[in-house]
Amino acid sequence: MMITIQDVMNQIEKDITLDSSTVDGLKYGNREDEVKAIAVSFMPSIAVIQKTAEIKANLLITHEALFYQHHSNQTLEKNTNLIEQKKSIIAQTNLAIYRNHDVVHRYQPDGITQGLIAELNWQQYVNEQQPAYSILHIPNATLAKIASHLKEKLGIEYLRFVGNKDMKCEKIAVLVGYRGNGATTIPLLEKVDLVIYGEGPEWETPEFVWDAVQQGSSKGIIQLGHAESEDPGMKWLANQLQLGFPTVPVTFLPTTSRFQLF
Amino acid sequence: MMITIQDVMNQIEKDITLDSSTVDGLKYGNREDEVKAIAVSFMPSIAVIQKTAEIKANLLITHEALFYQHHSNQTLEKNTNLIEQKKSIIAQTNLAIYRNHDVVHRYQPDGITQGLIAELNWQQYVNEQQPAYSILHIPNATLAKIASHLKEKLGIEYLRFVGNKDMKCEKIAVLVGYRGNGATTIPLLEKVDLVIYGEGPEWETPEFVWDAVQQGSSKGIIQLGHAESEDPGMKWLANQLQLGFPTVPVTFLPTTSRFQLF
Repeated sequence: MMITIQDVMNQIEKDITLDSSTVDGLKYGNREDEVKAIAVSFMPSIAVIQKTAEIKANLLITHEALFYQHHSNQTLEKNTNLIEQKKSIIAQTNLAIYRNHDVVHRYQPDGITQGLIAELNWQQYVNEQQPAYSILHIPNATLAKIASHLKEKLGIEYLRFVGNKDMKCEKIAVLVGYRGNGATTIPLLEKVDLVIYGEGPEWETPEFVWDAVQQGSSKGIIQLGHAESEDPGMKWLANQLQLGFPTVPVTFLPTTSRFQLF
Repeated sequence: MMITIQDVMNQIEKDITLDSSTVDGLKYGNREDEVKAIAVSFMPSIAVIQKTAEIKANLLITHEALFYQHHSNQTLEKNTNLIEQKKSIIAQTNLAIYRNHDVVHRYQPDGITQGLIAELNWQQYVNEQQPAYSILHIPNATLAKIASHLKEKLGIEYLRFVGNKDMKCEKIAVLVGYRGNGATTIPLLEKVDLVIYGEGPEWETPEFVWDAVQQGSSKGIIQLGHAESEDPGMKWLANQLQLGFPTVPVTFLPTTSRFQLF
């Protein structure tokens, strides 16, 4: 039986209703085309697009946007040489590209958070699941132990944290992507010891923790990095897809850390 | 002659017109009170507030907000114990606290950018000054040489960068604070080799540079950190104030890096 791009999208989007403002959707390609093989990635870099073509997949499912902005930015797209170049590379590959950002975050529990927790092998510690975060109770944890575990399981070279390495942190909130903002994470620090998130503004929650520690309170944050926190969620989505379409090869293409230290 | 808080504010705000949406203004204290001594900081942490009282300054001028959000967030302020604590510490010190964020950024050239360039001893390289950025031409520069210089002059332990360490980067754009977003910095990368900024979203400009390098283009970014990029600007403002009010002691209280590496 022929499986089309629309079939794949229907399966992924089952039971999810999105606002008209969604960033998701088929950005390149035709819904009626047959899917021969699928590649899944967090970031649709030029390297990922080329790799997708190389492995003969004709549908690329990505979490973030093609042109370096969450919402389409026509001014930027019209005036940037590299974006023109990337568009012609996409045209040459003839790939279908489907952005899946809002849908996977609307799963219950959030597919991206779920994927991160699975990658960390922490499912047994989950105590509470909310749309924006999960709360885990991990016995005998310290910030240093948690940081070591994160680095090992996620293959991260270094982590940025605020707090004391030896602090006990049995109650931990886990958030992915850009959910590290103060409005989301400061209230969580009233009930947990440690907040782990992808990315967030530097002088909101980090400053809160800095002040809290100075007042003798045992609080901490670990900033994983945006890609580092969401890559496992797209790996999880790739696995789900493979289960749903056993006859279509599904390949997960990981996104490495971009920043180097000097 | 008695110098009041209003006199100090008038001098700083001279010739600057702000929108009604400004975050600036006197958050604590009375405009008519005499200023005995001034402390100036990037971040009004609890430690900075206590230090200001300790050195017998009665006016604290800060760049960022007291309660971990750029705009006042009543929900957060009403429900967070540490914010309650910080408010009572402020009340005990009886300090006047004046936030100066928008004003110093509206100076021509931007006072915060100017302060960073002065701290780096790069004034002679400035080629173009715009409200959001300055462009510098630095002969024989490479990313590694620039990074070493930044670390040494700003006392930063480590820097995060994307690009090749050995790339030549004679044309450099310098941006402070949260101006590292893609809409601001991607167009700059069409005309400069390297962009140095405080903070910005991880998968906008860093991903652009990642793709550009893969296409053989010699581009790079260095992310200084928000506080690291703006602290010298507040030091510059403190110096300006001391020149304007020679009889009032002005003390600059530096903000250290908050993140540790693991």
